[in-house]
Amino acid sequence: MQVDAEVSDFCAAATPQARALLAERQLARLEADEARVRAFVALDVDAARRQIALPQAGPLGGALVGLKDIIATADFPTRYGASETAPVGPRTDAWCVGEMRRLGATILGKTVCTQFAYPVPGPTTNPHDATRTPGGSSSGSAAAVAAGFVSFALGTQTAGSTIRPAAYCGITGFKPSFGLLHMEGVEAISTTLDHLGLFARSPRDVWYPASALTLPQGEVVAPLAPRRVLVLRLPPELPQRDGYRERLQELAGWLRGEGVVAETIDLPFPLGDFRGLQQELCYWEAARILLAPDRMQLVPELRQLLRPYLEKDIAEYAEARRRRQRYQLEFDALVRHADALIMPAATGVAPAFANTGDAVMNRFWTALHVPAITVPLCWTSAGLPLGLQLVGRIGADRALAQSAQWFYERRPVRKASASAGRSAASPARV
Amino acid sequence: MQVDAEVSDFCAAATPQARALLAERQLARLEADEARVRAFVALDVDAARRQIALPQAGPLGGALVGLKDIIATADFPTRYGASETAPVGPRTDAWCVGEMRRLGATILGKTVCTQFAYPVPGPTTNPHDATRTPGGSSSGSAAAVAAGFVSFALGTQTAGSTIRPAAYCGITGFKPSFGLLHMEGVEAISTTLDHLGLFARSPRDVWYPASALTLPQGEVVAPLAPRRVLVLRLPPELPQRDGYRERLQELAGWLRGEGVVAETIDLPFPLGDFRGLQQELCYWEAARILLAPDRMQLVPELRQLLRPYLEKDIAEYAEARRRRQRYQLEFDALVRHADALIMPAATGVAPAFANTGDAVMNRFWTALHVPAITVPLCWTSAGLPLGLQLVGRIGADRALAQSAQWFYERRPVRKASASAGRSAASPARV
Repeated sequence: MQVDAEVSDFCAAATPQARALLAERQLARLEADEARVRAFVALDVDAARRQIALPQAGPLGGALVGLKDIIATADFPTRYGASETAPVGPRTDAWCVGEMRRLGATILGKTVCTQFAYPVPGPTTNPHDATRTPGGSSSGSAAAVAAGFVSFALGTQTAGSTIRPAAYCGITGFKPSFGLLHMEGVEAISTTLDHLGLFARSPRDVWYPASALTLPQGEVVAPLAPRRVLVLRLPPELPQRDGYRERLQELAGWLRGEGVVAETIDLPFPLGDFRGLQQELCYWEAARILLAPDRMQLVPELRQLLRPYLEKDIAEYAEARRRRQRYQLEFDALVRHADALIMPAATGVAPAFANTGDAVMNRFWTALHVPAITVPLCWTSAGLPLGLQLVGRIGADRALAQSAQWFYERRPVRKASASAGRSAASPARV
Repeated sequence: MQVDAEVSDFCAAATPQARALLAERQLARLEADEARVRAFVALDVDAARRQIALPQAGPLGGALVGLKDIIATADFPTRYGASETAPVGPRTDAWCVGEMRRLGATILGKTVCTQFAYPVPGPTTNPHDATRTPGGSSSGSAAAVAAGFVSFALGTQTAGSTIRPAAYCGITGFKPSFGLLHMEGVEAISTTLDHLGLFARSPRDVWYPASALTLPQGEVVAPLAPRRVLVLRLPPELPQRDGYRERLQELAGWLRGEGVVAETIDLPFPLGDFRGLQQELCYWEAARILLAPDRMQLVPELRQLLRPYLEKDIAEYAEARRRRQRYQLEFDALVRHADALIMPAATGVAPAFANTGDAVMNRFWTALHVPAITVPLCWTSAGLPLGLQLVGRIGADRALAQSAQWFYERRPVRKASASAGRSAASPARV
C-alpha cells in the first residue's frame, strides 16, 4: 500500500473543509507516531493548527508542508543536519518557502537531513520498519510524507537524495529539471548539481505544488498512458537486490499487455561514468563551497573526502563537464521518441540503519539535469517498498508526472505482509 | 592605452610594499575622480586604508576590490541597484566575498549596478568619456577598474553584463564557465544563466583572483600564443559599428602574420537563437524569481517585460533547453581544435548615456555556459575602446586566459587621441 488516503491525497481534498480535515488527521498521526519516526528537527504544531483553522487562500491553502533542514525559513532555525552548536543558516524564507507560503501552504516544521548528503544516518526511522533507514539525505522529508504527517515535503537532490528515500519509504519523489525550481536560500553543495526535490503521496500530488511554484497555476494532472518506454537493463556490476530485476521484468511484460511499447535497452553510457561522473563533478564543486572557512563544520570523513579535490586541476573538471554535455545530448536523442526511461530507483529495499543507502541509480540523471520521479513498484514479502524510477527529457517534467500517475493508478501495489510500521494496519490504497 | 600601470597591474606588484603603494595610488585616484566617475554606491576609504596599512597574508593581500551591489556583504548594505527605500539584501558575506577576504583582499565598497540588468543607466559615467555609459549592468565595477580605483572588481553576467562593460571601458572582463564560481549570496535573476564575472587590467590580472577562488593557488598566467583561432564573421543583421568589422579583419591578417591559423567562419548557429535563445531562457526563469511577491521592487518596464513569461508553458521552455544542449555540443565540436573563437565584445563603442548598450554579442555564449573574456582590440579616433571577445570550450578557462594574455601583450593597443577621460593624459601602456 501507499500512504493511507486518510492522511494524504491532497488533490482529492477539493474543499477547504476537506483540506482542514486532512491536516487535522495528519497532525493526529504526527502526535501518535513522531516519537518513533523522528522526522522533524523543529516543528510548531500549535502554530500550524492555528493557521489551518483559518481558511487559507491559494492553491496550497490548508496544505501541511515539511522542509528539509537545509532550506532557510524565517520562523525556524536552519542547521543543515549539523549539531545544535553549529552555526545556523539565515532566518529568512528561501525562495521556495516564500512562494509556498504565498500559495497558501502551512509550514509545519524542518525535517531531519543527514549532513551534506554524507550517508551517516540521522535519527529518522523508516516508517515501514524502524530498524531501517528512510534513506538520505532528505531523510525526514521522505519519512514525514510516508508516515502521513504532511501532504508535501521539500528536499533536495545533488546525487540521489530525493528519488532514493522516496523509494525506500514507498512514496513519490520528484526531482525536476535542473533550474526549474530556484535554489536561493537552500544550502548549496554543488553549483551544477543541486536540485530541489519534492515528496508526496502520488505523482499527481507531487506535481501539484511543483506546478504551482513554476506555472501559472497548480495543475492536477490526469494519468496519461505512455506509448513507449525504454526499460533499462543494467549491467551485472550494478547491484540490484531484493528482486528488483525480476519485478522490472514483470513490469515490462505487464506493460506490453497494456499495449505499451516497452523496449529493453542496455545501459548506453560507459559504466564508469554512470557510476562516477556525478561524483567527479560534485566533489570538485563541493570542495570549493564546503571547505571554505567559516562555513559549516563538516563531519571529518566528508572533509577528508573532499580535500584532495581542492588540488585537482581544472582540466580534469573541464573534461567531466564536456562528457556531461555529450551524455545530455545522447540521452535526449534516446528518449526523444519515448515517454520515459524506466529503471530501479535504488539498489534494493531500505538498508538497515548503518547507512542511508546507495545513490548509484540516481546520480547520473542528476548530473544530466533531466527530470526523474519515483513511484512504488512493489512491496517485498518483508513489507518493504521497491521504487520504480522514471527519467524524462529535459524540461518534460509535466509529461513525466503524467506517465508516472498512470503507473500509479493503473498498477497499484499493495503491501503484502505485516510489518513493523503502523501503516500495515491501515487499509490498502483505495 | 589600457588602465595606467601606475594604478593597476596587481600581478606585477610582487611585494607587500608594492601592493600597498598600488592601493595608495588607487585611493588617491579615487579621491580625485570618483565625483566624475561615480562608480560606487557605498564605500569606506578609511576602513580600506586601515586594512591595507597592515600587511595582509594571502594571494590577494593588499588588493583593493569593488563589488557589484547585488553581491551581499556583512559590512555594506546591498540594494540591487534599486532605490534607497527598497528592501536590502542580507548582511552576510556572499561566498565569493568571504573567500576573497580569506585570500587577503580588502573590500573597498559596493559598485553601481543597473537594476536587474535592465538597460536604464545608473549614475556611473564611462571613465573615457563622461557623456557615455560604462555599460551595464555591472556598470560601477567596470568603471572602477578602468578609472584605476581598484585592482579587481566583481560583477555578474546573465546576458552580457561583464564582457560588454569591460569592452566599453577598455579593460579585461572575464565570465568563467557556468558553475565555476559559486553564486551564493549574489542576487539571482536566472537559474541557469547567472554567472559571476571579474574585471581587471589584464587577462593575467583577471585570472589571478579567479584562480585563487577556484584552484589550489592564485596563478600568474604566462601568455600563450594560440595555434588556431576561429574568427567569427557575423551576418549583416548583427550591428557592428565604429569600425569593428574592419579592425577584426586587420586582426585576422595580423594573426596570420604571427603564424596563427586564423580561420574565418560564418555564424554556425541560427541567427534567431544567437540573438534570442538566452532571452527566452532568461525571461522564463527570471519571471519566476523576480515577480515573486515581497522580493525586489522592479522597475515597471521590467515587470511588464517579464509578466507574460509567467503564462508561458513549460513545453516552450523545455524546447529552448534542448536547443541549448544541442548548441553546447556543436560549439564544443567546433572549438575542440582551436584555442578560442574571436569576435566583437559589443556592437560598437560605448553608446551615449541613454542606455547601457546591446548584449547581443554576449548573450548566446552566456546561455552556452562557456567561458568568455574581453581584451582591448583598439581605440577609435574618438578615444574610445573597442573590445575583442574570446570564447572558449567549457571548463577551458585557464587556457582562454593564457590566449587572451598573449593578445594583450603581443598586440598592445594605444589610445590615439585626446578624450574626455583623465586617462588620456596618462602614459600609454608600458
